[in-house]
Amino acid sequence: MSDTKSAHSEDIFQRDMAEYEPLIRRPVRKKIADFNRDGRLKHVILSAQFTRPLLDEICDHADMVRELAGDTDGKRKLGTLLSHLHAMLYFTQPSTRTFLSFAAACRLLGIATEQVRDSAVSSETSEGSKRESRFDSIRMFSSYFDLIVMRSKAPNFAECCAYLMNELESREFNTRNIPILNAGSGADQHPTQALLDVYTIRRTFQFQDTKRTARPQFMQLRERYPELKQGIDDKTYAFCGDLGRGRTVRSLVELLLNYDHVRMVFISPDNEKFRLGDDLRNRLIERNIEIEEVDSLDAQINGKPLLSQIDCLYMTRIQQEHNHPEDEQFFASTDMSHYHLTPERVKSMRTYAPILHPFPRDSVAGEIPTSIDSDPRAMYFHQARNGLWARAALLIHVFNADRTLMQMYKEHFADVHDFNEAVL
Amino acid sequence: MSDTKSAHSEDIFQRDMAEYEPLIRRPVRKKIADFNRDGRLKHVILSAQFTRPLLDEICDHADMVRELAGDTDGKRKLGTLLSHLHAMLYFTQPSTRTFLSFAAACRLLGIATEQVRDSAVSSETSEGSKRESRFDSIRMFSSYFDLIVMRSKAPNFAECCAYLMNELESREFNTRNIPILNAGSGADQHPTQALLDVYTIRRTFQFQDTKRTARPQFMQLRERYPELKQGIDDKTYAFCGDLGRGRTVRSLVELLLNYDHVRMVFISPDNEKFRLGDDLRNRLIERNIEIEEVDSLDAQINGKPLLSQIDCLYMTRIQQEHNHPEDEQFFASTDMSHYHLTPERVKSMRTYAPILHPFPRDSVAGEIPTSIDSDPRAMYFHQARNGLWARAALLIHVFNADRTLMQMYKEHFADVHDFNEAVL
Amino acid sequence: MSDTKSAHSEDIFQRDMAEYEPLIRRPVRKKIADFNRDGRLKHVILSAQFTRPLLDEICDHADMVRELAGDTDGKRKLGTLLSHLHAMLYFTQPSTRTFLSFAAACRLLGIATEQVRDSAVSSETSEGSKRESRFDSIRMFSSYFDLIVMRSKAPNFAECCAYLMNELESREFNTRNIPILNAGSGADQHPTQALLDVYTIRRTFQFQDTKRTARPQFMQLRERYPELKQGIDDKTYAFCGDLGRGRTVRSLVELLLNYDHVRMVFISPDNEKFRLGDDLRNRLIERNIEIEEVDSLDAQINGKPLLSQIDCLYMTRIQQEHNHPEDEQFFASTDMSHYHLTPERVKSMRTYAPILHPFPRDSVAGEIPTSIDSDPRAMYFHQARNGLWARAALLIHVFNADRTLMQMYKEHFADVHDFNEAVL
Repeated sequence: MSDTKSAHSEDIFQRDMAEYEPLIRRPVRKKIADFNRDGRLKHVILSAQFTRPLLDEICDHADMVRELAGDTDGKRKLGTLLSHLHAMLYFTQPSTRTFLSFAAACRLLGIATEQVRDSAVSSETSEGSKRESRFDSIRMFSSYFDLIVMRSKAPNFAECCAYLMNELESREFNTRNIPILNAGSGADQHPTQALLDVYTIRRTFQFQDTKRTARPQFMQLRERYPELKQGIDDKTYAFCGDLGRGRTVRSLVELLLNYDHVRMVFISPDNEKFRLGDDLRNRLIERNIEIEEVDSLDAQINGKPLLSQIDCLYMTRIQQEHNHPEDEQFFASTDMSHYHLTPERVKSMRTYAPILHPFPRDSVAGEIPTSIDSDPRAMYFHQARNGLWARAALLIHVFNADRTLMQMYKEHFADVHDFNEAVL
Repeated sequence: MSDTKSAHSEDIFQRDMAEYEPLIRRPVRKKIADFNRDGRLKHVILSAQFTRPLLDEICDHADMVRELAGDTDGKRKLGTLLSHLHAMLYFTQPSTRTFLSFAAACRLLGIATEQVRDSAVSSETSEGSKRESRFDSIRMFSSYFDLIVMRSKAPNFAECCAYLMNELESREFNTRNIPILNAGSGADQHPTQALLDVYTIRRTFQFQDTKRTARPQFMQLRERYPELKQGIDDKTYAFCGDLGRGRTVRSLVELLLNYDHVRMVFISPDNEKFRLGDDLRNRLIERNIEIEEVDSLDAQINGKPLLSQIDCLYMTRIQQEHNHPEDEQFFASTDMSHYHLTPERVKSMRTYAPILHPFPRDSVAGEIPTSIDSDPRAMYFHQARNGLWARAALLIHVFNADRTLMQMYKEHFADVHDFNEAVL
Repeated sequence: MSDTKSAHSEDIFQRDMAEYEPLIRRPVRKKIADFNRDGRLKHVILSAQFTRPLLDEICDHADMVRELAGDTDGKRKLGTLLSHLHAMLYFTQPSTRTFLSFAAACRLLGIATEQVRDSAVSSETSEGSKRESRFDSIRMFSSYFDLIVMRSKAPNFAECCAYLMNELESREFNTRNIPILNAGSGADQHPTQALLDVYTIRRTFQFQDTKRTARPQFMQLRERYPELKQGIDDKTYAFCGDLGRGRTVRSLVELLLNYDHVRMVFISPDNEKFRLGDDLRNRLIERNIEIEEVDSLDAQINGKPLLSQIDCLYMTRIQQEHNHPEDEQFFASTDMSHYHLTPERVKSMRTYAPILHPFPRDSVAGEIPTSIDSDPRAMYFHQARNGLWARAALLIHVFNADRTLMQMYKEHFADVHDFNEAVL
């Protein structure tokens, strides 16, 4: 592949994207209306699309899916729910975790999948296709598939594809408008990661994990932390690491705005590239969210160690792959251990406070060493698995299969109940 | 990968292919007999295998599949039709569109798929496999799968694989002969593309697209074009672009020979590489087909603009990736806009005349600018989607499931009818 | 990808593997206990896990699967057996044959599959993932899938993954322990290849292949070879080729130790790298197995040509891709035709003695020329197909679905029987 041709391909893409510029520049509220249909998400593009009632609904349904998947028969039933559908997983930005999580969620509901992966190695870059508009490709996918899940390096590409679908639908001739799901686009949006984060936080703060006995129970906890409440509201969330460049923190913070009395602490190097972005800070201030910004996990707030005061710690990896030479220099001259968890630091945390991480973690830098994995507060592997349930529930919402799910759930556990009674 | 080893692999392949040379050199009629079994296509290798009754049957069944796929219940039924089968999609020449179309057609009928893609990046080129005969690979696939759909850069490779299958079956020990479907091989054959083209033309000339109201209805059209008839016969088909190097035009022309009173216009640069090939011209003359060859979309025939006289315009892309230096020079000194459609040119076409394109289109050269996409004559996206229905119908034919399909269709729409009556 | 980063990734991997060193160094018997659960294989890592009763059971079930797959209805039934499961095929070492065989076996039983292939081209090597511990990846897979089938260049990697699964299960919090299946790891173990080899040998020595009439029947054979017995016991097995470097011979020899009175002949260049490894020779001597080592297919044993005395010939390819410069020199100065089968040599073999080869075969070196393929002794293509049945039976064992299979088999053939009676 010659650079000339590659450049061509990028030029075409930029030219095509430019046509959507006026739509992209609109305020978020206006956009959101374009992504909904009949009070339901049609396309899932931005975290801001999730309202509190919707988050509650999806989390409830994720719980149902999880329970149904707990036995073979329930799994078989789930596998019929959307088995008439065929999804395209279009991941031109490399990803293993999000890709597999979506693939597994589709499979769980019976949705068949096809994939186009990293375009550098896929047939997308065949000589003949290099000069094809990427929007022609997307339109082709919409002919063959019922859903496109997409991850792209290009900011707003998923958003533009949603506009394309709407545009085709609204033309005089009858064209399918299939849902576009943003599985990470550019540096700014990763709404389904935020969704699974919220689902994990909700489950953790229900304090009802009966299987994992090492997790403390609510009544005992209340003796030690009298002000502790169940639920996502009324909590202090800390975010640590590469806050400026990571899209997961940005997307999760967006979702947490749906909850009451949340406080946020941001822990990062004091450098404009890595600390909380100005736009997000302004947005939080506007919304009257109580925030703190510090430059170490050992920092104090109101004279006490911050780690002893938070309800949830969200760790992130330094995204070395986006470093510029000046960043390398900055890191070389900065004591990065301030952003690494250690068993000692974990000990100073509240006994119930979950540690989250969107993964992958950096096993060289070691922001979370494996020695912490067996601590009951380590919830990051559970969080990864929750991606499966949360994404399945989202698909059920998008395809309006909630009622069928609820009916299935009711019947399944009635059967199980009957069966148990018969046995007894 | 060293060049030496790569060369090796190619040498082995050429050596193996050479053994089939005597079979390849036979006249087409003799070959066709080898690809059929009991009055049914066994292997789908050449366009010339499609007779008119077979084309009619496949198009009828494609319509049924399309209708069944129109509702969830019908889709679920279709998904059981061939759900005991497992297909190998062996695409060693890059392709996204044909690949996805076949994958989606398989899925629609419940056929599971596995794939080997562009051999440059697949495990096919593992050190150990480099010196394996490709026919050993194909024979292995035939052990694990019930069908091989293949696209290859090597001319006649699919044909040779069909001979291999026949050969194994005819030996004394009992070996499976699984169908080989040619999804594009070398520069000459792409029979399933031609099939979907014919299906699209047939649907268009039924003048019955009730959903797309912008498409004109037959009775109104007859007022303006009194000689217009329904169907593929009695029409003038124009082909524009890279006629010498593209296999789609060649394959479609072959299929159109099955119809009565078709006339053909070929529009291309007047250069032996890009105009209609001598062999194909001779064949058309032999068959007494009325043809015209011109060098511009603006050319006149019998003193009138050709665009106002044709019933169907088939556009193609200049295949830049096959250019030699002298071709680059030729294009640099040629006004290629003669082979690009413009809104003005479209205006001069008959109101019902479909514009087709096998895709991908070249968005830099712009043989069809996007401004034409919303014209009711633009049928190229519908054409792409038709690949799904036509290929599904072909699979149904090959696996002798036509009767089951017809039964399913009858029962499904009887049910729907009953249901509607019950509701009323 | 810079070399520095790539090196990093390898360093991390070595560091992580080192933690399992004490477990890896244990004697095989101690390890085996770790891979079993309730008298059943949990993880399939080493050939030594297969006992004779287990081999008998798996071969019996493989026969049932094969028979059920013989008709459409049986295939549909099989496809429900494990249709609630989802497998990850993690093949970071290139492989087409083993990969497709596992994919087809999964499909046959209704298991959905997802894949990660050669890490050099997969998203595994995305910048962000390069510094992720591979054990974090495996743990993630265990969240989304019910089974991991893995092939890796790294010796013992599959074994370590099995330990990781056990470790997670045994910790206080409830984590899934999903089966790990070794589909070839490093230079030493390929247990499922050995399993299909044993299955092929068993079928061959049942002398009951009624379909392939060219294969001689037992009673006739006894006239010519009065000492011939049915079954795997009491036979002489010859292995020819790259014995020192290939893992298939090593794994098969291991399994044959389960049978009585087997004799083994090893035919290879007389060079410490290519002949039988010292460890394996010592192990055979310890077990009192009668072995011979010779340097040509034309060698004599007890004054008679060895080829006329063996019951089974297992050919292998010289693994050129592992050559060091001194090996190239060695081969250049060695007459390698001593390790190539010819039609003449085949003629000197017993009429019933099967010729096996794990494939791919080297079509340049030509250790088995294609002219031998039609000889009734050539069983290598059947052997490849047997991978499907043997692997399906293994999956059925691992997921404890043997009883369901037997029930299905009984009912299916009762139905078929009833149906046939009804027709008559």
